[in-house]
Amino acid sequence: MAGKFLSERNIKFLAHEVFDVVSLTKYPYYKQHNKKMFDMVLDAAVKLGKDLMHPNLEEMDRNQPELVDGKVNVHPSVKKVMKEFGEGGWIGTSFPNDMDGEQLPLTIAGFCRFIFSAANYSSSVYPELTAGAARLIASFGSEEQIEAYLPKMLGGQWQGTMALTEPQAGSSLADISTTAFPTNEGHYKIRGQKIFISAGDHTAVNNVIHLMLAKVEGAPEGVKGISLFVVPKKRSDENGKLVPNDIVVSQIYHKLGYKGAPITELSIGEKDDCHGYLIGKENSGLFQMFQMMNEARIGVGLGATGISSAAYYASLDYTKERPQGRKYTQKDPATPQIPIIEHADVKRMLLFQRSIVEGSLSLLTQCSMYGDFEHIMEGDEKEKYALLLDILVPVAKSYPSEMSILSVSQGLQCFGGYGFCDDFPLEQYYRDTRIHPIHEGTTAIHGIDILGRKVTMHDGKAYKYYLDELKNTIKTANGSPDLQKHAKQLGDSLDTLEEVTSHLTTTVKEKGREIFLADGTLYLEMFGIITIAWQWLLQGIAIQKAQSKKLSESESNFYSGKFYTLRYFFAYELPKVMGLAKRLMDIDPLTVEAEIKHFND
Amino acid sequence: MAGKFLSERNIKFLAHEVFDVVSLTKYPYYKQHNKKMFDMVLDAAVKLGKDLMHPNLEEMDRNQPELVDGKVNVHPSVKKVMKEFGEGGWIGTSFPNDMDGEQLPLTIAGFCRFIFSAANYSSSVYPELTAGAARLIASFGSEEQIEAYLPKMLGGQWQGTMALTEPQAGSSLADISTTAFPTNEGHYKIRGQKIFISAGDHTAVNNVIHLMLAKVEGAPEGVKGISLFVVPKKRSDENGKLVPNDIVVSQIYHKLGYKGAPITELSIGEKDDCHGYLIGKENSGLFQMFQMMNEARIGVGLGATGISSAAYYASLDYTKERPQGRKYTQKDPATPQIPIIEHADVKRMLLFQRSIVEGSLSLLTQCSMYGDFEHIMEGDEKEKYALLLDILVPVAKSYPSEMSILSVSQGLQCFGGYGFCDDFPLEQYYRDTRIHPIHEGTTAIHGIDILGRKVTMHDGKAYKYYLDELKNTIKTANGSPDLQKHAKQLGDSLDTLEEVTSHLTTTVKEKGREIFLADGTLYLEMFGIITIAWQWLLQGIAIQKAQSKKLSESESNFYSGKFYTLRYFFAYELPKVMGLAKRLMDIDPLTVEAEIKHFND
Repeated sequence: MAGKFLSERNIKFLAHEVFDVVSLTKYPYYKQHNKKMFDMVLDAAVKLGKDLMHPNLEEMDRNQPELVDGKVNVHPSVKKVMKEFGEGGWIGTSFPNDMDGEQLPLTIAGFCRFIFSAANYSSSVYPELTAGAARLIASFGSEEQIEAYLPKMLGGQWQGTMALTEPQAGSSLADISTTAFPTNEGHYKIRGQKIFISAGDHTAVNNVIHLMLAKVEGAPEGVKGISLFVVPKKRSDENGKLVPNDIVVSQIYHKLGYKGAPITELSIGEKDDCHGYLIGKENSGLFQMFQMMNEARIGVGLGATGISSAAYYASLDYTKERPQGRKYTQKDPATPQIPIIEHADVKRMLLFQRSIVEGSLSLLTQCSMYGDFEHIMEGDEKEKYALLLDILVPVAKSYPSEMSILSVSQGLQCFGGYGFCDDFPLEQYYRDTRIHPIHEGTTAIHGIDILGRKVTMHDGKAYKYYLDELKNTIKTANGSPDLQKHAKQLGDSLDTLEEVTSHLTTTVKEKGREIFLADGTLYLEMFGIITIAWQWLLQGIAIQKAQSKKLSESESNFYSGKFYTLRYFFAYELPKVMGLAKRLMDIDPLTVEAEIKHFND
Repeated sequence: MAGKFLSERNIKFLAHEVFDVVSLTKYPYYKQHNKKMFDMVLDAAVKLGKDLMHPNLEEMDRNQPELVDGKVNVHPSVKKVMKEFGEGGWIGTSFPNDMDGEQLPLTIAGFCRFIFSAANYSSSVYPELTAGAARLIASFGSEEQIEAYLPKMLGGQWQGTMALTEPQAGSSLADISTTAFPTNEGHYKIRGQKIFISAGDHTAVNNVIHLMLAKVEGAPEGVKGISLFVVPKKRSDENGKLVPNDIVVSQIYHKLGYKGAPITELSIGEKDDCHGYLIGKENSGLFQMFQMMNEARIGVGLGATGISSAAYYASLDYTKERPQGRKYTQKDPATPQIPIIEHADVKRMLLFQRSIVEGSLSLLTQCSMYGDFEHIMEGDEKEKYALLLDILVPVAKSYPSEMSILSVSQGLQCFGGYGFCDDFPLEQYYRDTRIHPIHEGTTAIHGIDILGRKVTMHDGKAYKYYLDELKNTIKTANGSPDLQKHAKQLGDSLDTLEEVTSHLTTTVKEKGREIFLADGTLYLEMFGIITIAWQWLLQGIAIQKAQSKKLSESESNFYSGKFYTLRYFFAYELPKVMGLAKRLMDIDPLTVEAEIKHFND
C-alpha cells in the first residue's frame, strides 16, 4: 500500500501554470503568502497523506467503527490525524488569522483536501467535517460562540458535524421535524432524530459539535421555518465543566464503503435535556446552510476526484508490471509477453481515468479560484465570481462523483480478476467512491438545481458569465495551431448547449415545470462534459505555452502525456454530448407520463 | 429479503409472445414437450429460487467461504442446492435423455439460469458450473468418461469446474504452463497451478471434477499446444475406490462480491501424483473449450441480467414506499410527501433499469433460440444460426455485464443514503455484479473478438445474417403505425453501424491491425446498443399484437409499461450510438501512439 496515489507534478501544473494561484498574493488578504509557501504547504500535505493516512487505508476498511456501550470506537489513527491536523493548522487552513487560521486561499485548501482524500478518504473526513462546521460558526455565530467552539475545533480536539438529514427528510429539508423549544435561559431545548450523520460521535475526540437544522416550535411550515443551531455532545455547565447534553447514538450504519468513518443515527433530547444554541436569527437556517453548501459540495467533488486519482495510479502501476499477451504483429508465442499497458485498450482505460481525474481537479481548482476571487474582490467583480461559482457548483459536485464510479471501475478492470480481489485496493476504492453521487445532494437534486435555478437566476446572468468564460478560452486556444481543432469542437458543443438550453426554457413556458425538469440529470451531465472539455482546453493553453520552451526529457514527457489526455477527452468524451442533446431536444415526456400502475409486472 | 426479484410475466411474454419457444416442439428432438410443461418448469424454477436460494442471499455474503485445514467450508445451503438441483434434474436441464438429462431447449434452460441468478447469484454458480463442465465431457469425452462422470455430476453429488486461468496467463491462454506428462497407463500426470477457479473445491460435494487446460510435454508453443483434460479431485483407484488425486487448494480469494462462492487457487501434482484424463485428442483443447464458450458466455449475460433484475425490483419496491418531496405544482409544505416513484427522474432511473433487464433478457433468449435452432436444424439453416449465435455472443456476454454495473448503480441511487447501507440488498448486488465484465473474457477481449473476428469471418457472412435479421424486424415494425418512428430510428442506427464497420475494415487494410482494433470496446458497445434496440423493436411488435386484442386492466398496464420502456430505450439509450460513431469514424490513433513514458507523472 505504499504506491503513488496522486501526481504532485499535476498539482503544481494546475496551481502555477493553469491558474496562477500566486496571483492571489497581490491582494491584501493573501499578501502574507508567496509561491514558496504555497508549495511548502502542498508538499507537507502530501507528506502527511503518505505518512499518516495512506498506510491505514486498508486497515480502516477492514476494521470498521463499532458502537459498543454507547461509544463509537474508531481506528486508533483517527486520534493521531485529528491531533496532527489540529496542531499543524490543517483544519484552519483557509480560516482567517484572527481566528487562529492560516488564511490560505481556498484554492490551496482545496488541493490539500484532494491530497488527503486521495491518501485515505475515510480518514480525511474527520478534519474536513470539523472545518465545515467551524466555518458555519465563524460566518454566522456570535463572538462568544466563535470563542467557545473554534479554538477546540480548529485545534482538532473537538469533532464538527453537519446534522441535516432525518428519517422522513433526506432530499426534502422542508420536512425536517427536529424541534427547538425556546427557554428563558438563552438556549433552546432540542428534540428529534437525525440520521446519516458522518462522524456523529467517536472516541478519538473529547467532544462533538453538531451544526444542526431544527424548527423552532411554531415556526412556519417548510423551509422558511428552518433554524440553525450549534448542539454540542457535551455542553459547558455553569462552572465551565463539560457535561453530557442528552444526545445518544442510537445506531451506526454498516455500509458499502467509506467504512473508516462512522455514519451515525442520533437521538436528541430524549430526556428533555439537550441544549441547542441558535446561530444568527431564527428561521434563517436554510439560508445559512446554503452559504456553506458550495464549499461542502466542492469538497465532495474533491473527495471523489481524490479516490479516482488513487485508483488511477494503482491501476497504472499494475499495467506497467503485469505481462500479458503480445502485439498483433507478434505471432510467435515463444516471445515474452508484454506489459498490458502496451495494449491500446488498456491505454484507453488509463487515459479515460486520467482525463476524469485531471479534468475534474482542474474544474474544482477553477471553482476554488472563483471562491477566492469572490472573497477578495468587491462590487460587480465579486458578484460575477459568486455567480460563476454558483452555476458551476452542481457540476463540480456531480461530474467528479458520477464519473468516479466509472473511472474507478475502469481502474478495477485494468487488474482483470485481481481487481475483484481484496489483495489490491481497487475493490475498496470502488466501494468507497459510490457515496459521492448521494451525499451533499443527490445527482438528481443538482440536475434540478442547475436547470431549474442556476441557469435562469438573475435573468440568466450566471449562465451568461459561464458562456463568456468558455468563449474567452476558445478564443485564446484558437491562437494556437495545435488547439484549433479542439477549440472548434468545444465551440460546436457550446452551440449545442445554447440550443438545448433555449429549447428547454421555451418548454417550461409551454409545458410547465414538471416536463421542463424531467431530464435535469441529463442536462447536468451534458453541462458537465462541456465544462470539463473547457478545463482541458485551458490546460491545453498552458501545455502549449510550456512546450514552446526548452524542456527536459521528463518535463517533455509530462506535457506530451497531458496532451494525449486532452486529445482523449475531445475524441472520446466530448462526443457524448451528441446523444444527450438528441434526447434533451426530444419532446416525448415519457418519464412524466408513465404511471405507477405501469410498473406492476 | 422476501421481495420480488424478477417478473414472471415478462418471462412468459418473451417465451411465448416474442420468441414462441413452443414452436421448437415441432422438431423431433423436443417433441416430448409442450407449452404446459415449459411453463411448469419455469414456475418450478421460480419456486426453487424463492424457497431455496433467495432466503440465503445476505447470509452467504456475510459468511463467505473460508479455507480451514485444507478444506473450503461453504454455506450449508450449498449442499441443499446441489442435492435439490441434482435430484430435480436442474443440472441436466438441457442434456439429452440418454444422458439422464431432461432434453429441454436451451431457451428454457436459459430462463432457468436467469431465474436462479436473480434469486441468488453465488448459489446458482455451483450447479451451473457443474452443468458446463459436464457438457464438455458429454460433447467430447469417451463413452467411459461420460459414464464415469456424468451421472454424479448431473446428480449434484460432484462439482464441476472450468480450470483455465493461470497466474501468468489470464486473457492469454497461449501462455498456460500447466503440463501433462504422458504415462504408459492411459492417464497423464498433471503438474501446474491454476488460479481464479470458481467452486474449485468445497465441502458440499464428495468430489470435484476439473475440466482443465494443459499442455502435453513437448506440445507446440501457443494455443496450438493446448489439450483438455478431466482432472478429478479424487480419482478411482483399481478397486473403484475414490482416492486423493494430488490437487491442493493453496488459497481462496477474498473478493468484492459474489462472496457466496469460493474462488480458489489450485496446486496440481505437487507430489507428482495427479492423474489427468485426456478428452478427445491432444492439442485440440482450445477448439473444444471454445465450443462450450458460447454457452458459458451467454450464462454470464444471464447472471448479470439476473442481478440487474433483482436490483431493479428491490429499488422499484422502495420507490413505491418511500415518501419524499412534492410535485413542483404543490407549493404547500403542509401537504403530505409523495412516494418518490412519482418524481420523473426516479421513473427515469427505473425505466433505465427495466430497459436494461428486459432488453438484455430478450437478447439472451434470442441467442438461446439460435442455439436451439442450430441444434435441431441441418445444412445451411444450421450454419446460419450457428453464425448468428457466434456474432451475437460477445454482445450477449458484454452488454448485460457492463450495463449491469450501471443498472444496479441506478437501483442503489433510488435508495439515496439507504442504498449505501447494508440494511438493503442494493450494496450487495452492486458488489456481486462487478465480476461479470471480467470473467469468461473481459469486455476488451470481446471487443477484439467481434470486430477482429466475428464481423469479418466467412467473408462477413455472420454479419450479413445479423443485418438481415434486423432489417426483417424493421420491415415488420414499419407495418405498425406506433412503431414506425422506432423502426426508422433503428434503421438509421443500422446505417451508422454499416458506415462505421466499412470505415474500420478499410482502416485495417491501410493502417494495420493495431489501429483497427484499438477501439474494439467502443465498437462492441455501439453494436450492443443497436442490438438491444432491435430486441426492443421485436418486443414492440409483440406488444402491438397483444394490444390489438381486448385486455384486462392488469394486462393492459403490463403492455403499456413495456411500451414506455421501449420508448425509454429509443429516446435515451439508442442516441448514445451517435457519440460512439463519432469517435469510431475519427482517425486519431492516440491510444496506439501514446507511450509508457507519457504516463510517468
